[in-house]
Amino acid sequence: MSRSTGRRRFMAGTVAAVGAAAVLARDARAAASLGATEHEVPEDASKTQGYPLADESYGTRSQFETEARTRFKTATPQSSWTFTPLQDSVGIITPSGLHFERSHAGTAVVDPSKHSLFVHGMVAQPRKYTMRDLRRFPSVSRILFLECSGNGLTEWSKPTMPTVQGTHGLTSTSEWTGVPLAMILREAGLHSGARWVLAEGGDGAAMTRSIPIEKAMKDCLLAYGQNGEAIRPEQGYPLRLLVPGFEGNMNIKWLRRLEIADMPFMTREETSKYTDLLPSGKARQFTFEMEAKSVITAPSGDMTLDGPGFREITGLAWSGHGAIRRVDVSTDGGRNWRPAVLQNPVLPVCHTRFRLPWRWDGKEAILQSRCTDETGYVQPTLGQLIALRGLNGPLGSVYHLNAIQSWHVASDGKVTNVHHY
Amino acid sequence: MSRSTGRRRFMAGTVAAVGAAAVLARDARAAASLGATEHEVPEDASKTQGYPLADESYGTRSQFETEARTRFKTATPQSSWTFTPLQDSVGIITPSGLHFERSHAGTAVVDPSKHSLFVHGMVAQPRKYTMRDLRRFPSVSRILFLECSGNGLTEWSKPTMPTVQGTHGLTSTSEWTGVPLAMILREAGLHSGARWVLAEGGDGAAMTRSIPIEKAMKDCLLAYGQNGEAIRPEQGYPLRLLVPGFEGNMNIKWLRRLEIADMPFMTREETSKYTDLLPSGKARQFTFEMEAKSVITAPSGDMTLDGPGFREITGLAWSGHGAIRRVDVSTDGGRNWRPAVLQNPVLPVCHTRFRLPWRWDGKEAILQSRCTDETGYVQPTLGQLIALRGLNGPLGSVYHLNAIQSWHVASDGKVTNVHHY
Repeated sequence: MSRSTGRRRFMAGTVAAVGAAAVLARDARAAASLGATEHEVPEDASKTQGYPLADESYGTRSQFETEARTRFKTATPQSSWTFTPLQDSVGIITPSGLHFERSHAGTAVVDPSKHSLFVHGMVAQPRKYTMRDLRRFPSVSRILFLECSGNGLTEWSKPTMPTVQGTHGLTSTSEWTGVPLAMILREAGLHSGARWVLAEGGDGAAMTRSIPIEKAMKDCLLAYGQNGEAIRPEQGYPLRLLVPGFEGNMNIKWLRRLEIADMPFMTREETSKYTDLLPSGKARQFTFEMEAKSVITAPSGDMTLDGPGFREITGLAWSGHGAIRRVDVSTDGGRNWRPAVLQNPVLPVCHTRFRLPWRWDGKEAILQSRCTDETGYVQPTLGQLIALRGLNGPLGSVYHLNAIQSWHVASDGKVTNVHHY
Repeated sequence: MSRSTGRRRFMAGTVAAVGAAAVLARDARAAASLGATEHEVPEDASKTQGYPLADESYGTRSQFETEARTRFKTATPQSSWTFTPLQDSVGIITPSGLHFERSHAGTAVVDPSKHSLFVHGMVAQPRKYTMRDLRRFPSVSRILFLECSGNGLTEWSKPTMPTVQGTHGLTSTSEWTGVPLAMILREAGLHSGARWVLAEGGDGAAMTRSIPIEKAMKDCLLAYGQNGEAIRPEQGYPLRLLVPGFEGNMNIKWLRRLEIADMPFMTREETSKYTDLLPSGKARQFTFEMEAKSVITAPSGDMTLDGPGFREITGLAWSGHGAIRRVDVSTDGGRNWRPAVLQNPVLPVCHTRFRLPWRWDGKEAILQSRCTDETGYVQPTLGQLIALRGLNGPLGSVYHLNAIQSWHVASDGKVTNVHHY
């Protein structure tokens, strides 16, 4: 095949998954406006004036765009999750309006002028900071992923969720801005025996987790900014603890209290919940770091390739231990692997976008991605993970599923979620 | 002063500019809801359930946040600008809802399913691409600033706009995703004499600019993604040309046509407009690159420091020629300079956040920032710039004002926009 023919075939090929997603979006449009402002659509926009620029504005997305977070159907809508639509994601930033949610008692409504952070326990001087106080401190910004430790919990025993939104949508990336926690702890004056920090949220669940002092002093942030503006309500407005690389629930939202102690607090969230029951009958506790993980976001489950030809395979990789070093992609269920291109900048503890051009020959295929992080850790197969962790709950295990994901492409182009290991 | 005293004084100091801005925001709240969803505010959020997670959602910001783009009062609201509220900015990403706008015929409303890009002129084969076609190509993401060449146009002869939103708010940064323009041009097959690309928008102004072929082949993008979702309507939905580092108006919105030729097209926007009249009577034309520029965003004009003490000086720096290498800050009108800390990652052709802790002694001060980019270019004083470019319009010069900005701090803490050079 000459290069010129290749180019032509690239364009003459069939409609990619993106096309199918757009059709779904149009269907959904009638059902949900999801915040966009509706404008009349002219026959030819170049033959008319557009709508005027407003005197004061905060822009909304196009009325033609309807991708949405979708809720996991839990018993109550207050203790629940919503999933980021990763199938439509581009780049590494998650729009704040689509950042996944995990709340234990709904979204707390907090007036920032009345909110404060209390620091006490094993410190020289207990202190209380208003939001105004915190805004005066030197600040830091970092682009970081957050991931719920329950991301993928339905997928241990059998492939359950049809789309990547359902299998992997409890992870998102934002640029977070705030005050280094270490600065506040140094100001309070830690006792020499201080070893743990309890972080407590101001929501109805009073979410509480114990953070090792080494982590608190290393890189935690008291975050008030997200993607260039105030943190969003469902992310803990006006103040959230960021614990880079640690499981999502430790990144306490609506943060109101820090208590310093010489031992962990053994809260509800670190005894009955957020532990991992092993085959031996013992449970892993304090499984802080989110291990390296990757997933192909397009093509992915429930999309349809409507014919052979070139298309881009793209996805995301991330690790709680640092930067992603490489991502390999297989289109034959793991027999052969090719290195994907990583989009720069590749940042530590951040989604990394990977890409690989692929020419589908119209035959059955199984798409997989496998990442390696800067520690040398390689993303495991589901088989390897189950061998270590067992299947001890009603759905298998629960937390920290970071295995390789498989998407089956049928000869008719239909993409489905499968287990293949 | 002992270190411990320093810490205490840091916190015992007075309310920073941020506090004043929050008060303004509360005042403005009654006047404009600006898109936030209103929820009842409980006396104590921890004693009640928060609001439920929605089955389908696209989140909005807190009802307590009201920062907004503000419009420059032009003769018509269709040919106009709105300014990003840089005084409230944190980090480097601009929320898409606050990205500055510059439109010549309002915001065009375009149905993506009917939109196409036509490529013709000195090519082997004219081609037409639907949005679906473009989405199949290999893609690239880059975090890039955009700046209107008219940013600061009121500030040549005398300090005019009271806030940094008015003096510098025609620049914003987003993560843009799209297809390399070079890929599309290679597919069309350029004639050997091809030297320029005309880009035409599908809005009522049919904005057209000529791009040198070297730039088109180097790093231009056909962008359909912005900050992880579809590009916003006012940024050219569904397709915008990104010309990294070049003046904003060349980044053609609602892009519908590319014509290849052996000379520039001498459109209205490159003859009567977007040229720079010099003292000699000659005019600079095709002044593509935005030169290195920086500004202190806080404390900045119209803020009030309500007493001496520590606070953070922070701002943004950027260059159309590449990465920022250093930013120096002066608090005495340019007599002494201290290097600011640059927030990582420092990316080429992207806003770079800089920070410097400052202890205000309660006396008059003049705050300035001066950046240097990777080419070694140093941001000039206004005097140096006027010496080169003259003051040849009713407001002075018009475009490409990249001089050092001065903020005067009075002994009562009031910050104002001044000329000091």
